[in-house]
Amino acid sequence: MSDVASNGRKIPVAILGATGSVGQRFVSLLADHPWFEIAALTASDRSAGKEYAEAVGWVQESPLPDDVARQVVQATEPDAARECRLVFSALDAGVAGTCERAFADAGHLVVSNARNHRMDPSVPLVVPEINPDHLALIELQRGGNPSGGAIVTNPNCSTIGLVLALKPLHDAFVVKTVNVVTMQAVSGAGLPGIPAMQILDNLVPYIPGEEEKIEAESRKILGRFVDDGILECELTISAQCNRVPIVDGHTLCVSVGLEQPASVEALREVLRSFSGEPQRLRTPSAPDRPILCLDEPGAPQPRLHRNLDGGMAAVVGRIRRCPVLDFKFVVLSHNTLRGAARGAILVGELIRARGLMG
Amino acid sequence: MSDVASNGRKIPVAILGATGSVGQRFVSLLADHPWFEIAALTASDRSAGKEYAEAVGWVQESPLPDDVARQVVQATEPDAARECRLVFSALDAGVAGTCERAFADAGHLVVSNARNHRMDPSVPLVVPEINPDHLALIELQRGGNPSGGAIVTNPNCSTIGLVLALKPLHDAFVVKTVNVVTMQAVSGAGLPGIPAMQILDNLVPYIPGEEEKIEAESRKILGRFVDDGILECELTISAQCNRVPIVDGHTLCVSVGLEQPASVEALREVLRSFSGEPQRLRTPSAPDRPILCLDEPGAPQPRLHRNLDGGMAAVVGRIRRCPVLDFKFVVLSHNTLRGAARGAILVGELIRARGLMG
Amino acid sequence: MSDVASNGRKIPVAILGATGSVGQRFVSLLADHPWFEIAALTASDRSAGKEYAEAVGWVQESPLPDDVARQVVQATEPDAARECRLVFSALDAGVAGTCERAFADAGHLVVSNARNHRMDPSVPLVVPEINPDHLALIELQRGGNPSGGAIVTNPNCSTIGLVLALKPLHDAFVVKTVNVVTMQAVSGAGLPGIPAMQILDNLVPYIPGEEEKIEAESRKILGRFVDDGILECELTISAQCNRVPIVDGHTLCVSVGLEQPASVEALREVLRSFSGEPQRLRTPSAPDRPILCLDEPGAPQPRLHRNLDGGMAAVVGRIRRCPVLDFKFVVLSHNTLRGAARGAILVGELIRARGLMG
Amino acid sequence: MSDVASNGRKIPVAILGATGSVGQRFVSLLADHPWFEIAALTASDRSAGKEYAEAVGWVQESPLPDDVARQVVQATEPDAARECRLVFSALDAGVAGTCERAFADAGHLVVSNARNHRMDPSVPLVVPEINPDHLALIELQRGGNPSGGAIVTNPNCSTIGLVLALKPLHDAFVVKTVNVVTMQAVSGAGLPGIPAMQILDNLVPYIPGEEEKIEAESRKILGRFVDDGILECELTISAQCNRVPIVDGHTLCVSVGLEQPASVEALREVLRSFSGEPQRLRTPSAPDRPILCLDEPGAPQPRLHRNLDGGMAAVVGRIRRCPVLDFKFVVLSHNTLRGAARGAILVGELIRARGLMG
Repeated sequence: MSDVASNGRKIPVAILGATGSVGQRFVSLLADHPWFEIAALTASDRSAGKEYAEAVGWVQESPLPDDVARQVVQATEPDAARECRLVFSALDAGVAGTCERAFADAGHLVVSNARNHRMDPSVPLVVPEINPDHLALIELQRGGNPSGGAIVTNPNCSTIGLVLALKPLHDAFVVKTVNVVTMQAVSGAGLPGIPAMQILDNLVPYIPGEEEKIEAESRKILGRFVDDGILECELTISAQCNRVPIVDGHTLCVSVGLEQPASVEALREVLRSFSGEPQRLRTPSAPDRPILCLDEPGAPQPRLHRNLDGGMAAVVGRIRRCPVLDFKFVVLSHNTLRGAARGAILVGELIRARGLMG
Repeated sequence: MSDVASNGRKIPVAILGATGSVGQRFVSLLADHPWFEIAALTASDRSAGKEYAEAVGWVQESPLPDDVARQVVQATEPDAARECRLVFSALDAGVAGTCERAFADAGHLVVSNARNHRMDPSVPLVVPEINPDHLALIELQRGGNPSGGAIVTNPNCSTIGLVLALKPLHDAFVVKTVNVVTMQAVSGAGLPGIPAMQILDNLVPYIPGEEEKIEAESRKILGRFVDDGILECELTISAQCNRVPIVDGHTLCVSVGLEQPASVEALREVLRSFSGEPQRLRTPSAPDRPILCLDEPGAPQPRLHRNLDGGMAAVVGRIRRCPVLDFKFVVLSHNTLRGAARGAILVGELIRARGLMG
Repeated sequence: MSDVASNGRKIPVAILGATGSVGQRFVSLLADHPWFEIAALTASDRSAGKEYAEAVGWVQESPLPDDVARQVVQATEPDAARECRLVFSALDAGVAGTCERAFADAGHLVVSNARNHRMDPSVPLVVPEINPDHLALIELQRGGNPSGGAIVTNPNCSTIGLVLALKPLHDAFVVKTVNVVTMQAVSGAGLPGIPAMQILDNLVPYIPGEEEKIEAESRKILGRFVDDGILECELTISAQCNRVPIVDGHTLCVSVGLEQPASVEALREVLRSFSGEPQRLRTPSAPDRPILCLDEPGAPQPRLHRNLDGGMAAVVGRIRRCPVLDFKFVVLSHNTLRGAARGAILVGELIRARGLMG
Repeated sequence: MSDVASNGRKIPVAILGATGSVGQRFVSLLADHPWFEIAALTASDRSAGKEYAEAVGWVQESPLPDDVARQVVQATEPDAARECRLVFSALDAGVAGTCERAFADAGHLVVSNARNHRMDPSVPLVVPEINPDHLALIELQRGGNPSGGAIVTNPNCSTIGLVLALKPLHDAFVVKTVNVVTMQAVSGAGLPGIPAMQILDNLVPYIPGEEEKIEAESRKILGRFVDDGILECELTISAQCNRVPIVDGHTLCVSVGLEQPASVEALREVLRSFSGEPQRLRTPSAPDRPILCLDEPGAPQPRLHRNLDGGMAAVVGRIRRCPVLDFKFVVLSHNTLRGAARGAILVGELIRARGLMG
């Protein structure tokens, strides 16, 4: 933790795509972060040159921090982040592919929330509690140049809750098969996102590309780092995704088939006791426990439990036997905190704590 | 169709529990039914003696019919329905068990929406398009007395959509395994039902007893009538039930494992072309087609599609292969029309059309 | 009613902007209209040349009528409606000003739902039950040429409910002052309209331009036709407009100051007994009574009462004395039926019934 | 502040009706209060004897504090609070009248959220920023016995936001007339409160007794303490109350008639600069500023602004001239924080800070 401690100064970071809904979450969470400070904000050319307060349509529940409000937004080009080794990207998928590559080529470490590079073989797709070792791919991207740039990615907002719950089960019992049905909040669609007319008194049983993402990303995250790449986990997954009229919090109905014998109590125990590297390192955004198990029959519920432990906990309930596969349960996680901005910040903290800032 | 045709008079029917939310649906649907007319309304002792308009807290979107408004509500005792051979029960499970038995013992044919007698071996649990032959159990209950009474039941509101979709698949390909996750509307919980505070910006991943009902009822409905009873279908089912903030319409994400080889096109074809006895008999509440298949990727949706064909169609969409079982798809059905009052009325129509009125 | 009767043929009409949400309502309502038939559909250049089913993102609860589905959409130019004397416009305000003028110049009678021409001195702003005589402005626009075109407008969706309730009160007691607070459904904002993220578990106490429209339009509609123009009603109005998370139906809390003495009973009586020219002429879309008074303390409510009388009734409840002005009450009206498409169709019916088709 | 300071111990307090929704809010807010600690919890006889965790159906977003979870719930009788001079009542109106009187007679200072005693001439109805001097009625109730008990009340949840905004206007310009239309969240109705079926995709334009409460309570709170009683403010108020599908936060559309000349700027200035005794005394629950003025046209909105300043700020927006009265604006306040539990705790803090604990 030398950076902050040694010279008493915080690490300057940039936020790319700072005016969108995930970008606003980054601003709000980094505004008083103990390690990082916002040194640059970028957005589209239309916003460049304006003060942030003027460029943004702020929709967060916490007020826009005064000092950030007056920062001048810049165009999304590597020059904008000259002083920032670490860059958080909340860019739209439409531009993220090229922009993030340009920042990495210019020597930045880009922690991205966009889908574009997640499945690139050389790009780590990281949930800090699950596969911190995948960060070794950073070295590969740098090709031996310690001050080189790299792209690191955060998974899709509905994948995260799933893999957090699967990881300890996989370690203990080997997960072979997963069936998951999601009920996803509207904030997952960004801004403007889904029109009110399409979701009030309604649900939409289809989210373009989402089922494929869950299936592919889960196999990569639960995969093993070997030699110079990720060996995907051999897992059969079927996902069905629904958009429901809820503001925040994705709820998943999960069934799993296991290779090893298990019991409801054994599942609960391995879930409850799960802990990872962020917990050992006690980084600022790490929850006390990555998984919370609730025993009440009606839990977890999005409005009641999405904010537990700073919105960073995967909340599990209703663990029981499944007549078709072996066990079934419900998982809730906050899609714009763990599933987006705060999850990506935790990745940034891990990069720094592991001394990978170069 | 002799009753109406021969003497030009409609068949008098009674509604038990007429002031609750399902009872109100019965009133609204029977008010201008071509075969039946409301001759008696019963409710709790508290309401007995009052005019219906005064006893009810009417919450239907159609206005309370004038002539029903002035009928006097009676206590729920067999005497109340003296002139009515056919009786529709919207009674709460708390009293339905005993009351319905009393009406049957007094010689009435009770078509019930309550859960109490559904799994009784001698009581048919009927979806008219699926297992009309199960009505033969009426004879068994009558024990040879053609003017004897009997109880016939309508399934749980989330079971109906499921079995309507499973039946043609079972006939064509033999369904071995079913995984179903439901997203159920609040009207399914009756009145007062679930408090607004528990469901606004929220969902509840648990509905007491619901998963067991879906699993058991499906096996009975898809079972075969043999000799003197129902031989349950050998089906492995796993259900996970959620309450979501939607007024009407239950949506189900279903995966199925089949014994016979099939294709997406073959599934769509057998679903689309499915037709049953009510369609052949053209009874008044029978939809043109019990199953509608929609091809748009975002269909079916509760608000857009729940009322198709008078709320009697099971609307199927997103038929595709499933990596875990064989195929998966989405089913929507209207829980208070097909899933309660209008579904029960269709059973009543079938009883009459089959000449089982005694 | 000679057109339909004499030659047995319906009157061909065009719908401008047929793919938007109000355009879809026009399609759905005109698909089986007894007087009119859809002969032309127009939309933006992007949609021109496609079949309607392909060009539209259909969001109506009733299915898209088959014969309309196959009509080819045309660009929004007067040529498109060559055979249609009568044209219904569901165009966006961004293009309605110029386009509607072009159709009128080409000899069409344009009944518009857009705001652009409503306050033009020569354009009638009509609610058929209130100011059918304002249609005399059509002659003025035609400048003596009986086959000339003209523009006729339908008021804003929240104005209509208000003026329907004010008209009989004004006739009986002279309304001097009005305070109105609206709670408006999301469908009033069109498609895509307001994002779900802005309105779930929320309301927005501001709708750009809406308060000014209510104030100005009410004075024009309640004004008198004199000589060659409309003399606005001398009414002091204050409006406060809110968007609330409801699909359809605008609810208004209204207080009025009256010049003549009155009583709650007298108000109820004049509201109840109100009737207008469409009722006398019995045109197809005319409700039996333009105003329904409900006596239950909790009425009117959008979901329960918006569809009464085909969504064409202004539903009034809670009439009582006001300590600040004289009386207060609640008005509900359906914003996309009476307040948009069906309201405009009623204007079209009135034009024909009055022999103004030229 | 001697109590806590002198002996380092917190003041023991009791919560009456601790298992209801407002009771739970009290528990959650007092669990780590710097001055007070929960020494007793009461509920109905049915819950008495159980541990709190077992007796309560916890619906708060923050977890149930561990030490409170294990406290044993007692019956609601004065003995239960023997050690607690200060008692917070979250009792239902059905029992609050008698119970609170019994506690006061037994020497307790009861700060109540129930409506029963609010309009008693000898009972202060207090908003700490507005009328702290009304607490002098405590002496009257005690009849000279400094250790005697007394009842102090907190206003209705929709009254509070209104009077907070009216107070500075009244001081500066003399408010003569008020028209207010409320849009109230469902949490205001408690638990179970309003059924989901009545409010999804709907609103209810009537809340029994609410309009009368707003009108009467506002006049008392803004009244002057003279000699031995409260002289009510001479204010003409008209209130119209609506329940809307929002979880928390009451929004009010207010128009005011003023005696003195004013301007939009002058109103904004007196609202912005308003401050009261809790701010001078800096008690723990006092917000920095009781009134926040927002300038964006779409503010305030319940979901975005209800939690500002701990849910204790009245948030005002859209101040503008009114054609009917003089000015109009929108006020938002959090109904279960400022409008119930935290508002009552602020009253308790004021009682202690003023040395009225006896």
